[in-house]
Amino acid sequence: MTHDRPAPAGTPVPDAQQEREAEVTRQVLASFDGCADPRLREVMQSLVHHLHAFVREVRLTEREWNEGIAFLTRAGHITDERRQEFILLSDVLGASMQTVAVNNAAYGDATEATVFGPFFVENSPSIELGGDLAFGAAGEPCWVEGTVTDTAGKPVPGARIEVWEADEDGYYDTQYGDDRIAARAHLFSDADGRYRFWGLTPTPYPIPHDGPVGGLLAATGRSPMRASHLHFMVGAPELRTLVTHIFVRGDELLARDAVFGVKESLVKDFEAQPAGTPTPDGRDLGDRPWSRVRFDIVLAPDGA
Amino acid sequence: MTHDRPAPAGTPVPDAQQEREAEVTRQVLASFDGCADPRLREVMQSLVHHLHAFVREVRLTEREWNEGIAFLTRAGHITDERRQEFILLSDVLGASMQTVAVNNAAYGDATEATVFGPFFVENSPSIELGGDLAFGAAGEPCWVEGTVTDTAGKPVPGARIEVWEADEDGYYDTQYGDDRIAARAHLFSDADGRYRFWGLTPTPYPIPHDGPVGGLLAATGRSPMRASHLHFMVGAPELRTLVTHIFVRGDELLARDAVFGVKESLVKDFEAQPAGTPTPDGRDLGDRPWSRVRFDIVLAPDGA
Ligand SMILES: [Fe+2]
Ligand SMILES: [Fe+2]
Repeated sequence: MTHDRPAPAGTPVPDAQQEREAEVTRQVLASFDGCADPRLREVMQSLVHHLHAFVREVRLTEREWNEGIAFLTRAGHITDERRQEFILLSDVLGASMQTVAVNNAAYGDATEATVFGPFFVENSPSIELGGDLAFGAAGEPCWVEGTVTDTAGKPVPGARIEVWEADEDGYYDTQYGDDRIAARAHLFSDADGRYRFWGLTPTPYPIPHDGPVGGLLAATGRSPMRASHLHFMVGAPELRTLVTHIFVRGDELLARDAVFGVKESLVKDFEAQPAGTPTPDGRDLGDRPWSRVRFDIVLAPDGA
Repeated sequence: MTHDRPAPAGTPVPDAQQEREAEVTRQVLASFDGCADPRLREVMQSLVHHLHAFVREVRLTEREWNEGIAFLTRAGHITDERRQEFILLSDVLGASMQTVAVNNAAYGDATEATVFGPFFVENSPSIELGGDLAFGAAGEPCWVEGTVTDTAGKPVPGARIEVWEADEDGYYDTQYGDDRIAARAHLFSDADGRYRFWGLTPTPYPIPHDGPVGGLLAATGRSPMRASHLHFMVGAPELRTLVTHIFVRGDELLARDAVFGVKESLVKDFEAQPAGTPTPDGRDLGDRPWSRVRFDIVLAPDGA
């Protein structure tokens, strides 16, 4: 197709042309009027409304439309069981954080949610309280402890706590290229709602940027780096499942996280411990330094 | 994730929550401020604006977000050299026709444009004026003739006319599953701007609907059928390349074309010719009926 120069910004669109464009949108909206599922109808009609408004607003050229199709095609072809380019795309466009915001309204002092990301895996290994999730992943040991309570301050025993993180080279196990499972686990809070485990001190890493999403970030002058973080998903009966991270105070990437996941309430003090400092559980780490952090988790009621 | 019930439609969103959601959008918009290419910045910021507005407006649930990611993933995986699910998606959402509308403003009596569709192929066979594009594709012969002129009525000699269509079973050659090329060709207008060729009388067909886009149409109660049509792409120096179809007057699908491609000015009279009717070029069609249609093509100036 041949139209590759957008009209100069602000060029007024004549009324007759505006009407022709509006008529296209009306026809498409009407095509969903017969949809028997009212929620699906609402979602599709809103999607069409905003998609068409975008095309009209930027006067999308046919060359740009072709580039969009090619971008989605490349994203589809790089996506497999272990690589999810569409989640990365949603993340870097902030659609993921906007969805998180819509679905996790503030409720009392409930812990804030953040992006899920593309690296969660079902069926993580189970560890005991105080166990180690590294399973051979490289990194500085980090003692993580805290409580799980509801917004009335009542301890939540038996909460399922899923934890996952990148190793010190910035890779999740799903990126290793083999079937190893490492730096992920789940555990359960004790009778008093307390939990503790050994993880790795989080380090910054780039989101996978060798694909089309990486190309988009480069073309727009954006960094693929994520602020250092440790992922949590915490669930318990009758409480709202929390998907969140904790971040490392002092990390220079906090203000420019590639997926807009940082919230001040989730930035925690990871206290550096010189080699030889006694560990909370008596574990002997030899000549290795380690760190410790406290993260008290507050869950909102389900449906809040 | 756990939030699968949207708030009841019309539930007011508290101010503090609206502000939190707006702040997400502001952060994402700002992330593109450093984009060195002002057009790319404009396109991405508009896309983010409308994408976020959609998520907020429908109160997109996390389950619905997951379904969206899964839909795009399936579309990516069914797309290959011969199947383009993302173009189908753009087509059934009317984004293709909206882009066509934006890029093909009315200009004098220039022929109207319509959707490109997913079935064009580069390097079609060349045929002489009066040649046959069927190359073995099944269907009733159809004599197609007309002129190519500019909007001042001046004939356009040597215009490149690409033509492609489905066979009588509703399939394009790219859907045959082998490498045959059929029912497509290109030719050039003569010194007086005239053209003529043998094609096939168009028949209705469904867009490929065994993939995610077909699933979306079924779920929303929409038909995958396209009104019968014959594709044209016509180009000549200093004139706006025209991508269009002609449709068959009387086709009951004209009012509910799956991709919103029909325009009244593109509906033509295909005149049925009983078997034995002499053909314009003396071709002997034996006992086969045939049809004929006239399509005079008017090209706008390039950049109009
Ligand atoms: Fe992560
Ligand atoms: Fe077609």
